[in-house]
Amino acid sequence: MTESRISGQVRIVGTGLLGASIGHALGARGVDVILHDASRANVTLAIDYGAGRAATPGDDPVLVVVAVPPDVTADVVAAELAAWPRAIVTDVASVKSGILADVTATGADASRYIGSHPLAGRERGGAIAARADLFVGRPWVITEGSTAGRRLIEDLVLELGAVPVTMTAEQHDASVALVSHVPQVVATLLARRLSAAPDTAVALAGQGLRDTTRIAASDPELWVQILGANAVPVTEILRAYRDDLDAVLAALDKPDAPGARRTVADALAGGNAGVARIPGKHGQAKHFSQLVIMVDDRPGELARLLTEIGEAGVNMEDLRLEHSPGAQVGLAEISVLPEVEERLAAELGARGWKIAGAFA
Amino acid sequence: MTESRISGQVRIVGTGLLGASIGHALGARGVDVILHDASRANVTLAIDYGAGRAATPGDDPVLVVVAVPPDVTADVVAAELAAWPRAIVTDVASVKSGILADVTATGADASRYIGSHPLAGRERGGAIAARADLFVGRPWVITEGSTAGRRLIEDLVLELGAVPVTMTAEQHDASVALVSHVPQVVATLLARRLSAAPDTAVALAGQGLRDTTRIAASDPELWVQILGANAVPVTEILRAYRDDLDAVLAALDKPDAPGARRTVADALAGGNAGVARIPGKHGQAKHFSQLVIMVDDRPGELARLLTEIGEAGVNMEDLRLEHSPGAQVGLAEISVLPEVEERLAAELGARGWKIAGAFA
Repeated sequence: MTESRISGQVRIVGTGLLGASIGHALGARGVDVILHDASRANVTLAIDYGAGRAATPGDDPVLVVVAVPPDVTADVVAAELAAWPRAIVTDVASVKSGILADVTATGADASRYIGSHPLAGRERGGAIAARADLFVGRPWVITEGSTAGRRLIEDLVLELGAVPVTMTAEQHDASVALVSHVPQVVATLLARRLSAAPDTAVALAGQGLRDTTRIAASDPELWVQILGANAVPVTEILRAYRDDLDAVLAALDKPDAPGARRTVADALAGGNAGVARIPGKHGQAKHFSQLVIMVDDRPGELARLLTEIGEAGVNMEDLRLEHSPGAQVGLAEISVLPEVEERLAAELGARGWKIAGAFA
Repeated sequence: MTESRISGQVRIVGTGLLGASIGHALGARGVDVILHDASRANVTLAIDYGAGRAATPGDDPVLVVVAVPPDVTADVVAAELAAWPRAIVTDVASVKSGILADVTATGADASRYIGSHPLAGRERGGAIAARADLFVGRPWVITEGSTAGRRLIEDLVLELGAVPVTMTAEQHDASVALVSHVPQVVATLLARRLSAAPDTAVALAGQGLRDTTRIAASDPELWVQILGANAVPVTEILRAYRDDLDAVLAALDKPDAPGARRTVADALAGGNAGVARIPGKHGQAKHFSQLVIMVDDRPGELARLLTEIGEAGVNMEDLRLEHSPGAQVGLAEISVLPEVEERLAAELGARGWKIAGAFA
């Protein structure tokens, strides 16, 4: 007897970061996990790491999870639908409409296909990096399909500790274009400006540039596929972005012309309004106060700070570290509820911590 | 007798975050700090907070620091040069060439003016947020001028714990356009796309979007001035950025056309190369391994984790927290030297921590 919501075998096709992580998690819940990969070496590695077992002639999966690159997802889904006539088939690719259309076009029994997408991507990955807890607390989009099929995928999502979110394939693609694919392009093209810049300029980089360009470290091969597969919603948003950029460029070409400052100010205010909509911790767009505290670059110093914050009875809502080039000291930006900020600053000051800033 | 490198009075004009913070720091080092602000209320507040004293008829400053908004900096610098014929005058505005030209155009004695700029800006500020340690470890650009003048500003910079960086006003403006002003525009315009987006889309936002748009929360009034004052280098970079964007847009309009995937792949690889140039902790572009560890959202849990990392004898190079909407658990991404990663993962696993990922 299994403790899982899923009774029956689950077959996972593609044993990269996502596929192997799903295997680990389901295996830990007692599910019989069958692994398959186009690469014999990959599947052997994933089995060695404990993500599941090899396929056998008697397999009879109730669910097939296709976790292969976006470019080949539709073909693999169609093949799995044909191979397992009683199974529900899902995929985890970060684009959905095109795959649904392609699966339907193959003539496969698309009534048993439910596209889904865990928002658990990272800049870097690979089978060895797979962990059972990769999806905990992350949204996982489930697109349209039969009620029984959606219920099974929802069981899978809950089993993995993720948060099921239901929307159509089109809604999904437009949403991820906005919150993931366009940011990738924007960050990539900004980082690209740095590649030929003088060292003296790059040396002035601060946390703002680091944050704005972090995702530019993502895997080009994967992102070429994602951007190509979701080109329509991505270009729609990028075109609106470029129109805004052109307006700002025109205004900055003649910064003292009538209306120029207004154009730039409107853009900046629009940015304020947009960033305020992004949910913070626990999905709330709450306002916290920040204390910036100097931390010596010695082992244990940050632990000591956090321990003393705990001793002060204050729950830290967020923490960011900032480093300055050449400095042997870091800054820890602690977010707390506004009503405890003053007391915490006083307590930490009394304990000898240097407060480098406080912000509401 | 003072312990400061600076002997003589320092007059600070403008008592916002930067001016008041400089006052706090110099005062703590025994310097006689004179505060002035166009707003009587502002200067009174800064004096109440201990940033310095009010001006008196007998004042004779050796150094005047002008810390007013960029738009009025040149006029204030010129007035201070005229008022104190023996003093060196500097400013802390984030643009330099235009101010130097404007100061010279007033006919003031520009030989006693040395423009400078601490890279210590934040999204939010204000006089009450001022702290003596705001500049510790940050780069502080000192532009061209007399040797004696530059030496005095260097003393000021060292006194405040910052790192002096010498470059011309033009080099400075081109550098900050790249690492600060263009990123601001890029992040602002991306965040602006969110303002009219459906809630369901914004709910899928992850750490990537949060990081990419964080600085879009910056003060529009200040940034209209900065972008206007540094329009030439900013538009030069933004135009190159827009050309890249147009190339990606054209490629995504016909993603299956010959060369289209290559164009997108080149852009992404260029982003990889650019982001790799940004200095990390201690100014080195070192490569660290990352461990992602699940941390319950309870007071003291993160402190316990960091304490146990210290007990394992591992020096943490960086720390990032990630939160997922709706989850009662956070992820701590710990950067360590590659050679200790495996041992740390084993030690933490043995102590019951859940490792959600590991990346080289």
